Amino acid sequence: MSKLRFALVPLVFAVASSCAQADDAVEKAVDYRQGVMNVYAYNATSMGDMVKGKTKFDAAAFARYAKDLAAAAQLDVLAGFPEDSINDDSDASDTIWLDWVKFQDKHKALQEQSAKLADVASEGDESAMKEQFGKTAKTCKGCHDDFRN
Amino acid sequence: MSKLRFALVPLVFAVASSCAQADDAVEKAVDYRQGVMNVYAYNATSMGDMVKGKTKFDAAAFARYAKDLAAAAQLDVLAGFPEDSINDDSDASDTIWLDWVKFQDKHKALQEQSAKLADVASEGDESAMKEQFGKTAKTCKGCHDDFRN
Repeated sequence: MSKLRFALVPLVFAVASSCAQADDAVEKAVDYRQGVMNVYAYNATSMGDMVKGKTKFDAAAFARYAKDLAAAAQLDVLAGFPEDSINDDSDASDTIWLDWVKFQDKHKALQEQSAKLADVASEGDESAMKEQFGKTAKTCKGCHDDFRN
Repeated sequence: MSKLRFALVPLVFAVASSCAQADDAVEKAVDYRQGVMNVYAYNATSMGDMVKGKTKFDAAAFARYAKDLAAAAQLDVLAGFPEDSINDDSDASDTIWLDWVKFQDKHKALQEQSAKLADVASEGDESAMKEQFGKTAKTCKGCHDDFRN
């Protein structure tokens, strides 16, 4: 028994260490994806506040936010949702992993609409910017409705 | 006195509401800049782990991380450091606002080195990638040494 116990010690450490590494990897992925979401949110709400009249409309600032939202949408955020992060304590719904293709499509929709928004915003037409902002914001909401707890 | 008190009520509410809005703005900025830093960190440490041999070197994955780090470095992270966030509880050192020009320069250094890293990585030469990664990582460390608590 004593021999067996000693033989098990390295195994237990190896498993524990492997679990700790897996935990670290999940934590890193969750931090990353939440970071990307924070970047989305900052830019989207800054534009949204202008659209709603909560802050003064500033076409140049709006264009910067639109450019950064489009750039952030190009980041590989899907890498931040590894399968083993399905049960973490974040707001990510399990349905992400149950319907991965749909989740990817939602991300593509954000990429497309935010790219259009950046284009439109670079031209400076306020009403066109507000209209395209609405379409972009819908892609945020569409994803949150389905995939955020 | 009673009249004065009633007269003061709207003023107090206005000041309180204004402070709450300022707090919200600071919180939003801090969430944003920490989000950007998380995106930097995810990509930089993923490459760093390969460089250190903690994970297997994968040129294609490295190139994706390098591309995303360069893209994140182009985000307007400086907007996430408004002057009134000088006393928040984040890791941002007060020296950021005391030496803003130097802080901007550090950000420019990251932009330049990470752009070079993305270029080098797209060509797939492992030793060149590792060398340029070292130069890029130095810009992270250089900024953290001076401006992170």
